[in-house]
Amino acid sequence: MTKPVILTGDRTTGPLHLGHYAGSLRTRLRHQDDHDQYLLLADMQAMTDNAQEPAKVRRNVIEVALDYLAVGIDPTRTTICLQSHLPALAELSMLYLNFVTVARLERNPTIKDEIRARGFGRDIPAGFLCYPAAQAADITGFKATVVPVGEDQAPLIEQTNEIVRRINATAGSDVLPEAQAVIPKSGRLPGIDGRTKMSKSGGNAIPLSASPDAIRAAVKAMFTDPGHLRVEDPGRIEGNAVFTYLDAFDEEETALEELKAHYRRGGLGDGTIKKRLEEILQELIGPIRTRRKHYAEDLTYVIDVIRRGTERARERTETTRRDVVAALGLFQL
Amino acid sequence: MTKPVILTGDRTTGPLHLGHYAGSLRTRLRHQDDHDQYLLLADMQAMTDNAQEPAKVRRNVIEVALDYLAVGIDPTRTTICLQSHLPALAELSMLYLNFVTVARLERNPTIKDEIRARGFGRDIPAGFLCYPAAQAADITGFKATVVPVGEDQAPLIEQTNEIVRRINATAGSDVLPEAQAVIPKSGRLPGIDGRTKMSKSGGNAIPLSASPDAIRAAVKAMFTDPGHLRVEDPGRIEGNAVFTYLDAFDEEETALEELKAHYRRGGLGDGTIKKRLEEILQELIGPIRTRRKHYAEDLTYVIDVIRRGTERARERTETTRRDVVAALGLFQL
Repeated sequence: MTKPVILTGDRTTGPLHLGHYAGSLRTRLRHQDDHDQYLLLADMQAMTDNAQEPAKVRRNVIEVALDYLAVGIDPTRTTICLQSHLPALAELSMLYLNFVTVARLERNPTIKDEIRARGFGRDIPAGFLCYPAAQAADITGFKATVVPVGEDQAPLIEQTNEIVRRINATAGSDVLPEAQAVIPKSGRLPGIDGRTKMSKSGGNAIPLSASPDAIRAAVKAMFTDPGHLRVEDPGRIEGNAVFTYLDAFDEEETALEELKAHYRRGGLGDGTIKKRLEEILQELIGPIRTRRKHYAEDLTYVIDVIRRGTERARERTETTRRDVVAALGLFQL
Repeated sequence: MTKPVILTGDRTTGPLHLGHYAGSLRTRLRHQDDHDQYLLLADMQAMTDNAQEPAKVRRNVIEVALDYLAVGIDPTRTTICLQSHLPALAELSMLYLNFVTVARLERNPTIKDEIRARGFGRDIPAGFLCYPAAQAADITGFKATVVPVGEDQAPLIEQTNEIVRRINATAGSDVLPEAQAVIPKSGRLPGIDGRTKMSKSGGNAIPLSASPDAIRAAVKAMFTDPGHLRVEDPGRIEGNAVFTYLDAFDEEETALEELKAHYRRGGLGDGTIKKRLEEILQELIGPIRTRRKHYAEDLTYVIDVIRRGTERARERTETTRRDVVAALGLFQL
């Protein structure tokens, strides 16, 4: 039996951090065996809202690839590939734009939210409005049926499937499969300040390359329960970043439950829970940092990984493009 | 000295007619020697408002190519190429979409008019709204500096040049040249019914493959001066399709001026001027029809012409794409 095809990836706008690890990277490690997994270094999607900073987009192609290898993505089992070097994806994007209306793109809740969040107003780059069609090209180009997304991105997969249905209806055959959005059970990891989103620009992130000192400082600064002033006071677990992180990374569930109960009834200081979290994070990030440093000293290898993965991806996406063109009955030389 | 590069072409939505001959094809014949001329069979642009009819778009790739060869386009001097087979154009299109806002595309007068004319309302295909960016990719992909356009399309070239200036500003170098719109002196040829636009769908066109009988019938049915009832009546030249056609195709200028004067003062019947026009059109279209029939019987040759031209165009457009990516400093494997 062939393995289900999974497409995921990251915009190359910055190195990845612990939030990415909790939200997606560690799931990808698990998928390496039971899925045919493609990781897209999405430099073209990064350009949709970073057109003025192509150098940043370029630089982070390597940073993100280093993060992938550092966490343990194995390029012999997972295909790491570069979006800008897969022309079939651009060709499918341009084709798909004819199968979606401007009104429909404008109604997309994800796009609406992001336009607001980025403060674009009326000056949305056309590429940004159109990126759901490009994402449909990414997903269908690989004929992926499984797409892990954040909860707020589920409408993008629905948009992809609408395009798939239109293409299939026009072609009169099921040339493209529909994709299923898989929303991770673990929620989003908050920043160390307890705010909902960990982000590099928010200054509340722990990068995957963080030094032992930086990890220590981050945990020390971490938001707990502002009402928990003395050790003997009862403390709150909800909204307490340290416990959210322990929930995400502490594998000793029973011990963690006991810790929580103790904290709730009082008598457990923030220093103790932070010490535990720090140990766990040092143990988690230590080997990642070491591997990342190792690969960063061998960029020829990293570039070769991207090159070979992109070659494989190029074949796969070009085959899909030809299938779609043939199914629609467009001219083929 | 290198010749100026000229890009022009046609959407592959139907065979060409006498209006195309007067408006663009015969100018292209003249450009074969003094320009490096590319003719784009624009099947992807055709899809922007014909997405439901890919078979029509496919079929007309050959029809338009036949028209080119039939009027005397020489594939050793002019490059005939197929848009859908030039991936660099799709890649540049997707890139350029990040350098133009949705608001700017919506303000484009050509797009506004065409949205109205096609009755799209709010349901504009995104590909249609975005086609000025695709056209910018076509033009700059060939580094064309001369672009012949109808008067109503001049804003599209301005749009292209805006994108060029943004790319150059971001790159910090003049990687792309600006293009100049060349608007033909001869106005648009009216339909045989005297209406301003000759079009196949309007049923008022004379196709380049018209038979002698069809030409005769078309001229016979042609709109003249509805007030010119008896031969001895004075007749009007303005709005008289027969004279507009004579202006376009009669090369004996002095004789034509005398004919006009005679018609104006009366004593010249519609039959006489139509006879003259019919002779001219039979003489013009006859050899075109013969050549078209000849090539239609040798489709292997026609496809080979498209294939070889597309190969040449692929190299040129891919070089441009690489230049742009390098100038912007995006990642290159």
